[in-house]
Amino acid sequence: MPAKGNLLIGQSGGPTVVINQSLVGAILQAKKAKEIGAIYGALHGMKGILEENFIDLRKESASELERIAMTPASALGSARKKPTDEECARVFDVLKKYNIRYFFYIGGNDSAESTHIINEKAKSVGYELRCFHIPKTIDNDLRENDHTPGFGSAARFVACAIMGDNLDCRALPGVKINVIMGRHAGFLTAAAALARVYPDDGPHLIYLPERPFSMEKFAADVKAVHKRLGRCVVAVSEGIADENGVAIATKFSKEVDSHGNVQLSGTGALGDLLATEIKKRTTISRVRADTFGYLQRSFAGLVSAVDAREARTVGMLAVKEAVKGKEPSGSIAIRRKKGARYAVSYKRVPLASVARETLHMPDEFIAGTNNDVTGAFLRYARPLAGKLPVIGRFKAVKVARK
Amino acid sequence: MPAKGNLLIGQSGGPTVVINQSLVGAILQAKKAKEIGAIYGALHGMKGILEENFIDLRKESASELERIAMTPASALGSARKKPTDEECARVFDVLKKYNIRYFFYIGGNDSAESTHIINEKAKSVGYELRCFHIPKTIDNDLRENDHTPGFGSAARFVACAIMGDNLDCRALPGVKINVIMGRHAGFLTAAAALARVYPDDGPHLIYLPERPFSMEKFAADVKAVHKRLGRCVVAVSEGIADENGVAIATKFSKEVDSHGNVQLSGTGALGDLLATEIKKRTTISRVRADTFGYLQRSFAGLVSAVDAREARTVGMLAVKEAVKGKEPSGSIAIRRKKGARYAVSYKRVPLASVARETLHMPDEFIAGTNNDVTGAFLRYARPLAGKLPVIGRFKAVKVARK
Repeated sequence: MPAKGNLLIGQSGGPTVVINQSLVGAILQAKKAKEIGAIYGALHGMKGILEENFIDLRKESASELERIAMTPASALGSARKKPTDEECARVFDVLKKYNIRYFFYIGGNDSAESTHIINEKAKSVGYELRCFHIPKTIDNDLRENDHTPGFGSAARFVACAIMGDNLDCRALPGVKINVIMGRHAGFLTAAAALARVYPDDGPHLIYLPERPFSMEKFAADVKAVHKRLGRCVVAVSEGIADENGVAIATKFSKEVDSHGNVQLSGTGALGDLLATEIKKRTTISRVRADTFGYLQRSFAGLVSAVDAREARTVGMLAVKEAVKGKEPSGSIAIRRKKGARYAVSYKRVPLASVARETLHMPDEFIAGTNNDVTGAFLRYARPLAGKLPVIGRFKAVKVARK
Repeated sequence: MPAKGNLLIGQSGGPTVVINQSLVGAILQAKKAKEIGAIYGALHGMKGILEENFIDLRKESASELERIAMTPASALGSARKKPTDEECARVFDVLKKYNIRYFFYIGGNDSAESTHIINEKAKSVGYELRCFHIPKTIDNDLRENDHTPGFGSAARFVACAIMGDNLDCRALPGVKINVIMGRHAGFLTAAAALARVYPDDGPHLIYLPERPFSMEKFAADVKAVHKRLGRCVVAVSEGIADENGVAIATKFSKEVDSHGNVQLSGTGALGDLLATEIKKRTTISRVRADTFGYLQRSFAGLVSAVDAREARTVGMLAVKEAVKGKEPSGSIAIRRKKGARYAVSYKRVPLASVARETLHMPDEFIAGTNNDVTGAFLRYARPLAGKLPVIGRFKAVKVARK
């Protein structure tokens, strides 16, 4: 029997458009559990815990909770703060003071690590705590998971953006470079490939952080596509790095957060650099670059239905496991069932197995040319992004010249 | 009675997500007219006419035409080419050779001018031609029109983007600068204001090309908002210029752009410049910039229903007027009916009155502070973008600190 006590939940890291589905799923499930007293939300993640900045989630109406579930970006506020050992000790003072016996943290691998540290601390001081991480990241790079809540909707955004951009570049031909989020994992950049409908559709080239990026090879690739089709749409990850692992964008930004991550998003520097290099190295006159930026993770109203449903489910299941499960801690992982039809199962996994390290695109998803994805990736990603917009094209029967 | 003969239609300028609605509206209407023989599409606008690069639009199925109507970006291909006098002469050789008696050109004010030049040439040589311009531009800057097809959907994109961005910046506070298309007219940047749901929602500051931009004032504005709310979301037009009309992107380019890149769209330079200036002039640590770029005009699947319907209608009406109307040439303008409920009427107007000059945001749409829009603008723009996504927010009843 788990201890009776209060619940605290927080959100961490970069927002997604379905992160509040997980939050609301957890709140609604908690409301059903008689073991749970107060349901507190920590404002801005760890920061809110350290400052005892909580709100009473039992005071929220069911209808407002459903509106919040559909609302992009962490409704409790987020933080990129990773607690130090000293801060972890302080977290316990707070958890004890408020009789928190159920702790949930929604986030990526950094958040899983924070949750793990807190859980280990709880164990070491014999404080009875049910402690669960709820997965979230548009990067899709959490271990143990087939994919992560947030990725499907971000992939949908990228696919719709590239679909339109491919048509734009077909209407006004040139070279178009699109910089897509993904520091170390190329899944989101790879999702650009979902935009293809006709054989000559872009993205014609896809560069992932999993493969070393060479400016010479890039320019040669672009030149070859442009020669063949008269245009070239490129999808490139913000995290591309050279053969020594040095990020191509590093020279342009030195800002780091408390996890030691360099700022890659929120600047157009990488796209502009790549466009300039293509102009320098080719004779192509129309070269443009767009950096999709924060729109990928927060655009209102663009959600993959599958993603929303799964995000809700992992939130619900985390609370269910915490209350009724055999293990007092863990993370809820999404596994894909074998078979032609898309279906998933959910599994509690140890916190340590999700924390810290991240997943990368497996080799079978990356084409041998290192500038594209494989059919296996498309089969993997298609059900996650959901049905994409219909695209038409003229049969274009030429009129004989007179 | 108009002459019997063939029809030629082309698309010009920057694409929109509803430009093919106008094209398909015109094709379907033309199919009904017994006065019209062949229905030709010119590939890539003027370029296609000069090169006699036509496709037979009677060969396209009704179902494919409907798919094309829903597809972003000029399905016939576009061009930015403005014909010289010599080229205009050549256009007539082509029109005569193919017995073109109905000519339609979908585009903005430059396209209206091209259509006007062609029409004047036709009149001067006594060639019987029915010659219509069909309006299109996300910039919303065509004279004679209450608004233009393409604007509503682009405004919807900007509103949804800023809605999400505002929430993202609420979750992870800082300063967020968003650069929006619109070289001379601020309508699309102003549409960012549609994103506001709660009183403290962004965009908190809006800078339009219609008002001189001062870096000092900008920094002071941002500082004040950030002090008040702890965050600041900015919407700024790519076309902002100083009191002498010098574009900010050009003026400060050497400070941020080491690659010698000064174009407005397809580069993140202006956003990066503004972010750098805020970092330099304030003590705010988290400052980010996104440039929405081409996504604003081509994003697949994001369409304002009103915009799509009106774009279809202007295409249909242009052909109807050409066949049955009293005047052999003109442009179809959208007028708004007076009254509380949104409704429009359509009017044939002379080509010359749409050509060349563009509209700007009227003074009544711009707040006296020069960094916001007015309620009048919101009432004007809201029906054009359509119903926006539902946004929820916690009542956030604070838990008493223990």
